[in-house]
Amino acid sequence: MNAGGTGNTAVFPPVVENGTARGRLVLVCEHASNHIPARWGDLGLTAEQRMAHIAWDPGALGVARGLARLLDAVLVHAPVSRLVYDLNRAPHMAGAMPARSEVHDIPGNAALTPDQRATRTAAVYTPFHHGLHSLLMDRLARGLAPVMVTIHSFTPVYFGTPRAVEFGVIHDADETLPRTILSEARARTPLRAEWNEPYSALDDVTHTLRLQATPYGLPNAMLEIRNDLIATPAAEQAMAGTLAPVLSAAIAALPAGVTA
Amino acid sequence: MNAGGTGNTAVFPPVVENGTARGRLVLVCEHASNHIPARWGDLGLTAEQRMAHIAWDPGALGVARGLARLLDAVLVHAPVSRLVYDLNRAPHMAGAMPARSEVHDIPGNAALTPDQRATRTAAVYTPFHHGLHSLLMDRLARGLAPVMVTIHSFTPVYFGTPRAVEFGVIHDADETLPRTILSEARARTPLRAEWNEPYSALDDVTHTLRLQATPYGLPNAMLEIRNDLIATPAAEQAMAGTLAPVLSAAIAALPAGVTA
Repeated sequence: MNAGGTGNTAVFPPVVENGTARGRLVLVCEHASNHIPARWGDLGLTAEQRMAHIAWDPGALGVARGLARLLDAVLVHAPVSRLVYDLNRAPHMAGAMPARSEVHDIPGNAALTPDQRATRTAAVYTPFHHGLHSLLMDRLARGLAPVMVTIHSFTPVYFGTPRAVEFGVIHDADETLPRTILSEARARTPLRAEWNEPYSALDDVTHTLRLQATPYGLPNAMLEIRNDLIATPAAEQAMAGTLAPVLSAAIAALPAGVTA
Repeated sequence: MNAGGTGNTAVFPPVVENGTARGRLVLVCEHASNHIPARWGDLGLTAEQRMAHIAWDPGALGVARGLARLLDAVLVHAPVSRLVYDLNRAPHMAGAMPARSEVHDIPGNAALTPDQRATRTAAVYTPFHHGLHSLLMDRLARGLAPVMVTIHSFTPVYFGTPRAVEFGVIHDADETLPRTILSEARARTPLRAEWNEPYSALDDVTHTLRLQATPYGLPNAMLEIRNDLIATPAAEQAMAGTLAPVLSAAIAALPAGVTA
């Protein structure tokens, strides 16, 4: 195990799919992958732990890909597990390189030095956010008025307690788009949809929104889907089909441009 | 003239001075330079216009360099004129590539296409902000708890009206550091120091603070110095000597870390 090792200087920019899409929507999947690059070994985890929700958001990428196709949206997703670096956390937060996640210790993150934290930040966090930022700035400069929506999934049982919510809509500073998504989801789908569930901005889970959308006044929202509802490729595509009209209606209800 | 031309793919990252400084302070000078790279010709301006305050903040870089030396601070400054791209404005704002500044038309910015706006954004805005962001994230990951202060200058006469204010302190979302800088400036210096003068965040002048500091909870402030007070190298150094104890006291009064 070589957690945080500095012998390798590879960086991990985001994967961009459908980059020439002409719609306003930019979908972001920060927890798309459970891949741990070789330089970080297995972080001291079992194969089962590395497949679990602590390592990624199972199903989120499949749903996001379906939505990108149905809505002519760009998709930006992460190539590295959240256990190496959680892209939805700032570098000084404990959760960025967590020593513990739910009921699991992460041995490879237990005693990171400042150099190791800086190395992971420079290898994973900064390239991802610069890639996403460059894409958003290009579209903003061209007058395409981007709308950013992040796609996440959550575990149906957390610390032993079942969660009833199926679809959560979480906001940062601007509630406009999330409010409309919630009302459209309740009107158009059978999902049990809730506001700021299973988390809210107060839990520090809106970092990507706060960093990439809020400073520019871009409409934005964070969506959370319970992962037992998207546990197969067919279920992922069905969920994309359920949510596409919700997002389409919510985006159509926005003002046409970005307020300068 | 080849304003916004795409024949050249050079990019313009920031200049970093004193990058190994161990103090918390990161000084930023977005309007340090009046340089217009050859690919953008002269933007249709006279030599006199290209020396005027519309092209840069005269004196700001000299003051910032003096402060960096006196306070063991990093200094990050721009290599390109604000008339090519104003780094303190988002790409969709008219002021990012202004067609008019105060009483001057900027012919080279009069009819930019979406491609030209995107090219300038990718060449000047994105590399500057990514360079600054990488530096801040490295220090944040290492636990150095950065404090960001931007250094600007303003013209003593604007649209024909003299300005009495000599030193302006401008805040974004967090007023803590700016409030202390203002009170220390009034207590320790003879400067006529004012709150949110000659501009405020409502004039969209706090973009760099909003993008780089606010999402991370980094203490931050924007400082404006009347440029007739820093019109020679000796005056720049004297102003740095006047302001260094102000900033030092204000930073010492901050909590030790960054709130996660």
